Amino acid sequence: MTTLNHQWVLASRPQGEVTPDNFRLVEAPVPAADQLADGQVVVRHHYLSLDPYMRGRMNDSKSYAEPQPLGQVMIGGTVGEVMASKHPRFAVGDKVLGMGGWQEVSVMDANVRGALTKVDTTHIPLSAYLGSVGMPGVTAWYGLIKIIGPKAGETVVVSAASGAVGSVVGQLAKARGCRVVGVAGGADKCQYVVDELGFDACIDYKAHPDPKSFYAALKAATPQGIDGYFENVGGMILDAVLLRMNAFGRIAMCGMIAGYEGQPTPMQNPALILVNRLKVEGFIVSEHPEVWPEATKELGTLVATGQMKFRESIAQGLSSAPEAFMGLLKGKNFGKQLVKLI
Amino acid sequence: MTTLNHQWVLASRPQGEVTPDNFRLVEAPVPAADQLADGQVVVRHHYLSLDPYMRGRMNDSKSYAEPQPLGQVMIGGTVGEVMASKHPRFAVGDKVLGMGGWQEVSVMDANVRGALTKVDTTHIPLSAYLGSVGMPGVTAWYGLIKIIGPKAGETVVVSAASGAVGSVVGQLAKARGCRVVGVAGGADKCQYVVDELGFDACIDYKAHPDPKSFYAALKAATPQGIDGYFENVGGMILDAVLLRMNAFGRIAMCGMIAGYEGQPTPMQNPALILVNRLKVEGFIVSEHPEVWPEATKELGTLVATGQMKFRESIAQGLSSAPEAFMGLLKGKNFGKQLVKLI
Repeated sequence: MTTLNHQWVLASRPQGEVTPDNFRLVEAPVPAADQLADGQVVVRHHYLSLDPYMRGRMNDSKSYAEPQPLGQVMIGGTVGEVMASKHPRFAVGDKVLGMGGWQEVSVMDANVRGALTKVDTTHIPLSAYLGSVGMPGVTAWYGLIKIIGPKAGETVVVSAASGAVGSVVGQLAKARGCRVVGVAGGADKCQYVVDELGFDACIDYKAHPDPKSFYAALKAATPQGIDGYFENVGGMILDAVLLRMNAFGRIAMCGMIAGYEGQPTPMQNPALILVNRLKVEGFIVSEHPEVWPEATKELGTLVATGQMKFRESIAQGLSSAPEAFMGLLKGKNFGKQLVKLI
Repeated sequence: MTTLNHQWVLASRPQGEVTPDNFRLVEAPVPAADQLADGQVVVRHHYLSLDPYMRGRMNDSKSYAEPQPLGQVMIGGTVGEVMASKHPRFAVGDKVLGMGGWQEVSVMDANVRGALTKVDTTHIPLSAYLGSVGMPGVTAWYGLIKIIGPKAGETVVVSAASGAVGSVVGQLAKARGCRVVGVAGGADKCQYVVDELGFDACIDYKAHPDPKSFYAALKAATPQGIDGYFENVGGMILDAVLLRMNAFGRIAMCGMIAGYEGQPTPMQNPALILVNRLKVEGFIVSEHPEVWPEATKELGTLVATGQMKFRESIAQGLSSAPEAFMGLLKGKNFGKQLVKLI
C-alpha cells in the first residue's frame, strides 16, 4: 500500500490569469489501515477531474461557493479504488466517486452523506463518472432539460461544444429532435462535434475572431433563429446569439469562461431580452441534487449503450495538474479534461 | 355632434431622439351616424394615453410588434364616450376603452374582439382605465406576480417608481409584505413615492449621476440585498441592481427606456446572472391576456377603495401630444402621462 501522498495546495490567489506559482506541491503521509477512525475510507485516485468552476473558487470574492482556502488541498472530483476501509458499505477494491481533491490519495469520512459513492464500471468506464455520467453530464442535463426545455424542431446552440458539458448538451438536444449548432475553438474540434457527436453544424470562433464575422457564420447556421442557448463562454458569442434569439427563447447560463480570468465581458444589448421576451437563468448543478437520479439514469444508459459519445484530454501524473488546468481555461483541452494518477 | 376630427400621423421615423417633425397634424371628417356600417361605433375620446412602448413602434426595425406605419394615425390607448353606435352592445353615452389612437374621435369596429370595452366609472375614474386599472397596471401586476413572485420579507426594487407602472409595482409589493425601494428622477418624485405611495425608500438617480454614488445609495437602501427587480430603465441602474441581487433573485424586464432613443445600454457584468443564479425574463403584457381578469379585479378593487394611489400628468388638447410624449421619454412626466381631449 502506498505510504506517501502528493498534494497540490493553493499557494496564492491569481491576479488575473492563473500562474504556476499559484499552486504548491506538497507531500503528506497516508495513514495505515489500523490508524483509521470508524467510517474512514482511504481511496487511491485513478483520475482527477479539472473543471472551469475551480477558477472561481481560487478568488477570494463573493460567489456562490466558499473560496478555496489558501494552503489547503485544491478541491476537485475524483474517481478511484478503495485501499482501506473502516466503513461497512465500502470494501477494499470498490470503485468510488468523491471530491478527493488534487492529490493521489484521499481519506474520506464515508459517513458524510454523499461524500463517497460506489460506482459500477461493468458497462461504464470509471473516468466517465467525472464526465458524461458525472457532474458535467448532469450540468448539461439540468440546463438543457430544466431551463431550456427543448422541443422537437427547435434550434439549440451550445458554446464550448466539444467540452465535457457542451458535448452532452448537444447530444441530448439531438435526441430530442432539435437542430443543434455548436460553437468551438478550432477546425478539429468543430469537425469532431459534427462528424462524431452528430451536431448539425459547428462554428469555429477562432476562424471568426470579430463580432461581424462570427454573427454572419451564426446566422448562416441558424436559418430559423435560436430557441435555446446553453452558455459556457460569454462575451462576443453571447452577444451574437442574443441577436439570433427567437421570441420566447431560453438561455441557460452555466459558465462564462471568457471572463474567468478577470476580462470584462459586458452584454452589449440586454434590451434584446425584453424585445424577444427571453428567459435567461443562471444555475449551479450542485444546488439541484433532486435531478441527479433521473439525469444519471438517462446519461448512464446512453453511455453504456454507446449512444452518447465523449472524448477525454488526459494529462499524466499529478504533477501535470496545474498546467492542464491553465490549458483548460484557455480552451487547449479537447473534451473532458482529466489527470490520470495511476 | 362633432363633425371634424384632428389626428396625429407619423410623418417620419426618428433618427435617435424623437423630434416634433416626426409627427404631422391632419384633419379628418367624422362620419354622420347614418353613414356608419353595421358594428361601427363612433367614440369621442376624453383621454389619450402616452406610453414608452410607442417609441419602439416608431422605428422600422424588428421588434415584438409591427412598426407604426408612416402616414397613419399614431397608435395609442384611449377612453371616451360613445357618440353614435350601430352595434347592439354599445349605446350613446357609454364610457369605453379602446386603442383609438392619437386623435379626438375614432370609428371602431366593435365586432372585433377586444377592440372596444365598456367600463364602469361609478367607483373608478375614467382615466384610471388607461393607468392603474389598465395596461400599465396589468403590466405591473404581471411582472411582479408572475415573474418576480414576491414573498413577504423580500426586498423588491422598481425603477421609474413614480410612473404609471412603477407606482403599481411598489404598492402591490408592499401589500404582499415586501420591503420596497424605488428609483426615480428627482427629489419631488422620490418624496411622493415614499410619502404618498408608501415605499420604504426611494433613490433619486439624478442626485447620484455616477455608478459609484448610485451603487452606494442603493446598497444603503437595500441592507438585505435585492430579491426582485422590476426593470423599466436599464443602463447604470440595472448594473448597480445586479451587484445587489441575492441568490435566486428574479428580474422582470419590462422596459429599458434608457436605450429607447438609440443610446447603447450594455450590461456590464452579465456573469452575475450566473454567480447569483438569477432569472431574468422579458415580457410584453399584451401576450398574456389570460391574466387580465385576475389582475384588473385586484387593481380595480384597490383603486376603488382608495388603497392604490396614482398620479397623472395631464397635457391639455390633442395639439400637445408630441411635446408631452417627448417629455415622457425624458422622464419629465410625474405619474401616468395622459392627454386630455375634451
